[in-house]
Amino acid sequence: MDATDETAWLRERFSLPSGRIYLDGNSLGALPCATASRVAEVVERQWGEDLIAGWNRHGWMEAPQRVGDKIGRLIGAPAGSVIVGDTTTLQIFRLLGAVVQARRDRPVIAIERSNFPADNYIAQGLAELLGGAVELRPVDVDDLDHLERVLDERVAVLELSHVDFRSGRIRPMRAIQAVAQRVGVYTCWDLAHSAGALPVALEAAGVELAVGCGYKYLCGGPGAPAFAYVRPDLQDQLRSPTAGWLGHAEPFAFEPDFRPAAGIRGWLCGTPSVLATAALEVGVDLLLEADLEALRAKATALTSLFIEQVEARAEGLLGLRLASPRHDEHRGNQVLWRHPEGYAVVQALIDRGVVGDFRAPDGMRFGFAPAYVRHVDAFDAALALVDVLQNETWRRPEYRRRQAVT
Amino acid sequence: MDATDETAWLRERFSLPSGRIYLDGNSLGALPCATASRVAEVVERQWGEDLIAGWNRHGWMEAPQRVGDKIGRLIGAPAGSVIVGDTTTLQIFRLLGAVVQARRDRPVIAIERSNFPADNYIAQGLAELLGGAVELRPVDVDDLDHLERVLDERVAVLELSHVDFRSGRIRPMRAIQAVAQRVGVYTCWDLAHSAGALPVALEAAGVELAVGCGYKYLCGGPGAPAFAYVRPDLQDQLRSPTAGWLGHAEPFAFEPDFRPAAGIRGWLCGTPSVLATAALEVGVDLLLEADLEALRAKATALTSLFIEQVEARAEGLLGLRLASPRHDEHRGNQVLWRHPEGYAVVQALIDRGVVGDFRAPDGMRFGFAPAYVRHVDAFDAALALVDVLQNETWRRPEYRRRQAVT
Repeated sequence: MDATDETAWLRERFSLPSGRIYLDGNSLGALPCATASRVAEVVERQWGEDLIAGWNRHGWMEAPQRVGDKIGRLIGAPAGSVIVGDTTTLQIFRLLGAVVQARRDRPVIAIERSNFPADNYIAQGLAELLGGAVELRPVDVDDLDHLERVLDERVAVLELSHVDFRSGRIRPMRAIQAVAQRVGVYTCWDLAHSAGALPVALEAAGVELAVGCGYKYLCGGPGAPAFAYVRPDLQDQLRSPTAGWLGHAEPFAFEPDFRPAAGIRGWLCGTPSVLATAALEVGVDLLLEADLEALRAKATALTSLFIEQVEARAEGLLGLRLASPRHDEHRGNQVLWRHPEGYAVVQALIDRGVVGDFRAPDGMRFGFAPAYVRHVDAFDAALALVDVLQNETWRRPEYRRRQAVT
Repeated sequence: MDATDETAWLRERFSLPSGRIYLDGNSLGALPCATASRVAEVVERQWGEDLIAGWNRHGWMEAPQRVGDKIGRLIGAPAGSVIVGDTTTLQIFRLLGAVVQARRDRPVIAIERSNFPADNYIAQGLAELLGGAVELRPVDVDDLDHLERVLDERVAVLELSHVDFRSGRIRPMRAIQAVAQRVGVYTCWDLAHSAGALPVALEAAGVELAVGCGYKYLCGGPGAPAFAYVRPDLQDQLRSPTAGWLGHAEPFAFEPDFRPAAGIRGWLCGTPSVLATAALEVGVDLLLEADLEALRAKATALTSLFIEQVEARAEGLLGLRLASPRHDEHRGNQVLWRHPEGYAVVQALIDRGVVGDFRAPDGMRFGFAPAYVRHVDAFDAALALVDVLQNETWRRPEYRRRQAVT
């Protein structure tokens, strides 16, 4: 299967450690070969030699929009609708805050119960700051009937995840969008596990707002800047509550009052990290060279193969329970198995060079970033998982000692 | 003077371009020699080889607090009171928001009129988000009598700059703190132009809150992460409105509700940029090797020399007006001259290799980062400025064409 994989060339563009099967690219993407020299160039030549002139001479100032436009091409967003910067959590704060202040007659934020917890923490923080003026309503987006019942004219915005960070379930964007739009509810999608992972069509679906992460499938490096999408017609209608100088119409006029720049630039805030943005751009450029449809097809083949091989070899399933959708079209590029000793099993696998991650309470998560994971990796990982379970390697005390795992 | 300068060794630790006198380190600090290899190590070895394990293996997770503690030593803040991350503007939002939600009986934020505009933009954004629940009161912190009159029990917090970003005037921290504390007003100091530039004693002055910038005197690189200080007794009493997973008591428990970590960790939010934080740490480490009192004495000598030489040589001052304090103890490490053709004069100087910056409407700003600016640089810069004015070099059309200058 690897021999006939038309996207196999892409793996050569990554600098991967030897002797490991890395199935955690959905947590931290691998290092593109071109990143080190690009970052060195920014540090040594652009910063070191040109100093302050770098802002104009090397396009540092435009980077949040330039890289945003490039990400836009990966998520079906038009040029001028995406900016890069800050963290996913802060981008959610910015977008939800913008909606809340524009729609005071709709005092409810609907939050998907199974969102990545930080997505909901930040909504809680916003509600607390607003001192009772906003109420959070947890909802279950996987049940459209329920969703139709709980979204009403009191809801300003629905915050949800395109791909569930645990199970990898892909949410039907158009269907959910239709339910929300029927009662005028905006949506704010977290694309952390779909941007660069599978085709996304924000514009076609009519999505109002979205955010995403730079360090997973976009391979921007640990803690890479995040991104935010604001539908063009809403860019000037809404207003970023985090008013900062780079979002000002004339940042260098040093006017006393904030006057937002037109368009997506008005959503910028403070001075962005040039180094971090440069590293992110390398990852995004690399994905733009690839065919996202082909990569998605490969990822589906990888997760299928992994599930199939585990199920075929694990007699009685050895305590495993598949928590990811079985149907390809519902499953993102990851597989979640539940197992009571999931933590220890993941540690035992890491020790064997198969790197997945543990997600409380009992999830073993394996991400198949199609840009650099091969079919043979999926096959070998399945064998390793079955072996660890069959031989109960996970019982070794060093695997059961808990520590922070990211 | 350079021959007897006991801090002269420090300049050798920076990678400086040849043929230029760089007087803009208060906008973007110069590149420490050690940064490039440190960043390369993080990219190639830590990220590239260890991937997700880097978070635990290389102290990425602790970096915001570790580097925060180091910055604390430069600003007189105890260990565990400073965190690194995000941008200065966002840190101000976070701190002001925290005060506002804890002190709803005090609906006013006092903002220094001459703050860097973004500091006030973000307060405006916060007030707009809060929809009339908060009112901004512009004040003049350089007039203590006025300040005493305008700070009252309705004011929750005073947001001000330690060193004026234009004139370089240093504000008397203890005196202002005393005025504020008399009516229970918290202070939130922007240390952008004092952290790493001159001795700061936050704890001794009893300061409640502060923020600062990583890319000026701390030499963390373009758009380096900012920092925030929260006085220890307030860390758990106040609460960050930007509730994010890294500020959670147990980030990896994935609890549905936000429960802040005790202490300064509870003020973290999203995943920080590892690359950008690593670069910042190099700059901070370098400053920690130096004697900040000696550096400050040198900076005062540099700005004095510059002013003295310009005034001695510019007959009739050639349209120049000194806008920085003449008394050493009131003047930060920079000199602001006002001149009606300031923009063109700055361009003409840059063309001659003397890099200062222009600050609207008519300010020519020259920063003397004592870590790498020599006495001979101050002397030569004075000669160049006088020459450009005497020969009216600034009249050349290419110097008068305005463009974005950072």
